[in-house]
Amino acid sequence: MTGSVTVIGLGPGDPDLLTRAAEAALARAQDLIGYIPYVARVPERPGLTRHATDNRVEVDRARHALELAAAGRHVAVVSGGDPGVFAMAAAVFEAVEAGHPAWRTLDITVEPGITAMLAAAARLGAPLGGDFCALSLSDNLKPWEVVTARLEAVLRADFVVSLYNPISKARPWQLGRALALTAEIRAPETPVIFARAVSRPDEAIRVLTLAEARETTADMATMVIIGASGTRLIPRGDGVRPYVYTPRSVPA
Amino acid sequence: MTGSVTVIGLGPGDPDLLTRAAEAALARAQDLIGYIPYVARVPERPGLTRHATDNRVEVDRARHALELAAAGRHVAVVSGGDPGVFAMAAAVFEAVEAGHPAWRTLDITVEPGITAMLAAAARLGAPLGGDFCALSLSDNLKPWEVVTARLEAVLRADFVVSLYNPISKARPWQLGRALALTAEIRAPETPVIFARAVSRPDEAIRVLTLAEARETTADMATMVIIGASGTRLIPRGDGVRPYVYTPRSVPA
Repeated sequence: MTGSVTVIGLGPGDPDLLTRAAEAALARAQDLIGYIPYVARVPERPGLTRHATDNRVEVDRARHALELAAAGRHVAVVSGGDPGVFAMAAAVFEAVEAGHPAWRTLDITVEPGITAMLAAAARLGAPLGGDFCALSLSDNLKPWEVVTARLEAVLRADFVVSLYNPISKARPWQLGRALALTAEIRAPETPVIFARAVSRPDEAIRVLTLAEARETTADMATMVIIGASGTRLIPRGDGVRPYVYTPRSVPA
Repeated sequence: MTGSVTVIGLGPGDPDLLTRAAEAALARAQDLIGYIPYVARVPERPGLTRHATDNRVEVDRARHALELAAAGRHVAVVSGGDPGVFAMAAAVFEAVEAGHPAWRTLDITVEPGITAMLAAAARLGAPLGGDFCALSLSDNLKPWEVVTARLEAVLRADFVVSLYNPISKARPWQLGRALALTAEIRAPETPVIFARAVSRPDEAIRVLTLAEARETTADMATMVIIGASGTRLIPRGDGVRPYVYTPRSVPA
């Protein structure tokens, strides 16, 4: 009996933003493993056993998936967005490397998804139109000094910067520090986007300037995108959100 | 008569990697505009007029789409991958900004897609498991000095680096220089991934070390991913490609 693990990206929330491959992988699964709100997005059906867990146990969850697969089950591990971007795929491979040697011969696949920064960018225009970075502001798994050194490097090199995990109850001050560092390097009129719950019923998007941006605008469901020097707004009249885009060209 | 422009990401190639939203947008279109191989991916049907053009005319193509929409047509502009990542979305908004003021009131939307680095990462494991950047190596639209300054910055700050547009007939030497710069900063055993035509029939993936990596391994259809200091291989036995992943943690 040969089991499998498929690590599946559920995208930003709207079921129409799943790929057909992700849908097909969900339909094949016997066990569904993931953080509670992501498991809740997958409809119940006969033959599917659901294992919803808290957010802070990624490697336990990954081990559980691998154990079930080793026992012959077809397991879906679900993440929001893309599972390879600050989500479950890395945790699964950490567990494979540290775990039973036989786990390396299991059938493990990853189904990509629309990650938050691509969903947010699509809503706004093309803010990621030039070179860009994805940086997690969480200092749970890396020292804060590494976070700030990386942020400073990409700000000085004029990348557009997508900040994942900008804020949480346990990490209330990091985004404020990051915005203060940004203000030392980028112009006050630089566009800063707060894109919350994109494609979900409670979607809320704000386009501010760096001078206006405050950490209080973000919550756990928010993606923050800091424009580069070339990032621009296209006004569309009163009461209509402007387009935001970064031109493809960088002048000499 | 109100027309529309939808800029649609076709993903890496496999039709199962489109979102349902992208499929629905293609089904609504009256005109299909894009680079020849992307237009060729969309099946012909009655009521759909196809306008396939060469690769070097992005802004002409964008203007054409906006003119058709202004005349009341429902236009789909297609890109491979995600349209917001080194693709057509930025060109469309450049054309909007420079064009007729009435174009700002058109119904313009962007449907995100699976961009090449996410598709490649999913095939390999989780190489983008930490902080990462997307950098175009093309110096058609930005000075080469900007490309190398950005590459050096993110290499020194220990990001995983995804290189888009690594090489072409007109740009044969840039990737070799980029690999040489990388070798000055990162260890010889750093994993370097050459992921060609992911999810298409001619898919070819090679996992090399930085010491082994040569620009001749890449072509126009290749995405190059340079690992960070933490990026690791998990061997799986003779003749089986190892998993590649970047742990979520960065040690102090």
